[in-house]
Amino acid sequence: MKNNETVLLGHGSGGRLSHDLIHNLFVRYFRNDILLIQGDSAVLPVIHGTICLTTDSFVVDPIFFPGGNIGNLAIAGTVNDLAVSGAKPEYLSAAFILEEGFPMSDLEEIVKTMAEEASKAGVFIVTGDTKVVERGKCDKLFINTSGVGSLLPDSEGIIAGKNIKIGDKIIINGFIGDHGMAVMSARNNLQINSPVESDCACLNGLISDALQFKSAIKFMRDATRGGLGTVLAELCHHKPFGINLLEEAVPVRENVRGMCELLGFDPLYVANEGKVVMVVAAESANSILHIMQQHPLGKESAIIGEIMEHHAGKTWLLTSIGGKRIVDMPAGEQLPRIC
Amino acid sequence: MKNNETVLLGHGSGGRLSHDLIHNLFVRYFRNDILLIQGDSAVLPVIHGTICLTTDSFVVDPIFFPGGNIGNLAIAGTVNDLAVSGAKPEYLSAAFILEEGFPMSDLEEIVKTMAEEASKAGVFIVTGDTKVVERGKCDKLFINTSGVGSLLPDSEGIIAGKNIKIGDKIIINGFIGDHGMAVMSARNNLQINSPVESDCACLNGLISDALQFKSAIKFMRDATRGGLGTVLAELCHHKPFGINLLEEAVPVRENVRGMCELLGFDPLYVANEGKVVMVVAAESANSILHIMQQHPLGKESAIIGEIMEHHAGKTWLLTSIGGKRIVDMPAGEQLPRIC
Repeated sequence: MKNNETVLLGHGSGGRLSHDLIHNLFVRYFRNDILLIQGDSAVLPVIHGTICLTTDSFVVDPIFFPGGNIGNLAIAGTVNDLAVSGAKPEYLSAAFILEEGFPMSDLEEIVKTMAEEASKAGVFIVTGDTKVVERGKCDKLFINTSGVGSLLPDSEGIIAGKNIKIGDKIIINGFIGDHGMAVMSARNNLQINSPVESDCACLNGLISDALQFKSAIKFMRDATRGGLGTVLAELCHHKPFGINLLEEAVPVRENVRGMCELLGFDPLYVANEGKVVMVVAAESANSILHIMQQHPLGKESAIIGEIMEHHAGKTWLLTSIGGKRIVDMPAGEQLPRIC
Repeated sequence: MKNNETVLLGHGSGGRLSHDLIHNLFVRYFRNDILLIQGDSAVLPVIHGTICLTTDSFVVDPIFFPGGNIGNLAIAGTVNDLAVSGAKPEYLSAAFILEEGFPMSDLEEIVKTMAEEASKAGVFIVTGDTKVVERGKCDKLFINTSGVGSLLPDSEGIIAGKNIKIGDKIIINGFIGDHGMAVMSARNNLQINSPVESDCACLNGLISDALQFKSAIKFMRDATRGGLGTVLAELCHHKPFGINLLEEAVPVRENVRGMCELLGFDPLYVANEGKVVMVVAAESANSILHIMQQHPLGKESAIIGEIMEHHAGKTWLLTSIGGKRIVDMPAGEQLPRIC
């Protein structure tokens, strides 16, 4: 790519410019045998067992932020949606909506990041699409990734959380709020002494380790938009159990806590892009915690609460000063375009 | 939905507004057992055989046009990408990027159209995503649909067109250019005596009929962006054969021809959303044509050309006045945002 090149409307035309962009950029970085066939669909090698399908569009603003960019976010988001469903992420599609005039060098940087993240996670980008809209009709670029994975044997119950019982423990794999505050600091160009980096990461390796205790894992969800608080509020919504959450046990970095206080956010509702919340059987909680702590993405894993009989349908936070308050689903939007 | 409601940033937050939108709109219209589980991924019933995956984002402007809207376009586009690959379209994802302030009644109309089109095509929308961006940061709404289908037995060769031979015939299932001119007339608010309607339609039924002659079908592609001309130019690009296209045989409606002349477009490059181009063995061409003509979406099917030995890598158009010209891939963009 030449330095001065930008995206033209013709790159989305389906004609020669589209053809060149596909060959010189997407196929070059995403290169794999399935993608190379370039039919209207990708023909996947036989997948054994039950298949999971997921989709996510990414509109994060800004597109580059400390710890990543929209590219690895788009890979991690979809990989994680499959992994928390108890599936092995295998194949991804990548669809780009580009604004006319977008710098080709930025696009290349993002595509390169996507390729690296996909390779780390062991998934293949096998099909794609590119549309270009006129200047001012979208904000730089939006990416959709959809993903196909194979459900691991005996994982059917995890998605719906059907086997959750009173006394089950809640685990998270580390610090909350990093992604949201990293994007906020980039968005507002904040000068911070100890800058926050996004936790954006593919969790399929960590989750695969934890799934050695598959029968003890009742539910998993990645705490993205809406944060940990929304996951827990949703988890017990209309259910015959409540959740007890211990504020002291929830890992929050000092700089994230500081930024949240400064800007008026509650870390419980700030987005993460590399955090999985698990509900696990009490008797296996410590073993699962231990195995997660051995993984680079789970060093700070912690048991942060439990499923309780009282207050069915509600999540209660026990604050560090001994208070109690309900963790509700937020009505509106704390941080638009965080992912 | 109340008439005065509009999309708010909070509808993309992952919180309560998102939750309500999903339940009251998407789940209500797309309703099926798989979607209702609402995990991070959809768990699909066992699919036998090889799986195909495809993705497409839709950014058509305007979003409502004669003969359809962005909703049925998003379903037909992805269904057709699977069908022309020799796959049975089965499950779709639907991801929405919405502009803050977009009328909820328009969104409902579009979602309703998607549900109807999916039902007609016999596919299920099993998972989705909604993002909202601030006013002015996207143009009303963009939709991504990704799709999973099962490759029909003995269809492996169709995607790559590996079995194409000299003498094979080229078939199209009817009039070209309808979609492009319908969108153009809506975009420019043209007052035309005989208005053009988009040909937007799911072709899986028609293609399934034609596949009774599966061994004779060498290649299929839906002629969308870039039109029939681009499909043919791409088909023989770097191949050891050329294509002979007979202008007189290519079906073009009078009003489409008129609009193209008026506006300076070549119908060969105008987008279709319900047209499949097939390369078939000469000896079965008439039988396939006959069976296609029995289908409501194939009444005007025609043999429009053939694979030739000369001029390898090029498509030649024999014009109705006896001239000859090369049909090349268009460099730039004839009609931005046609799909």
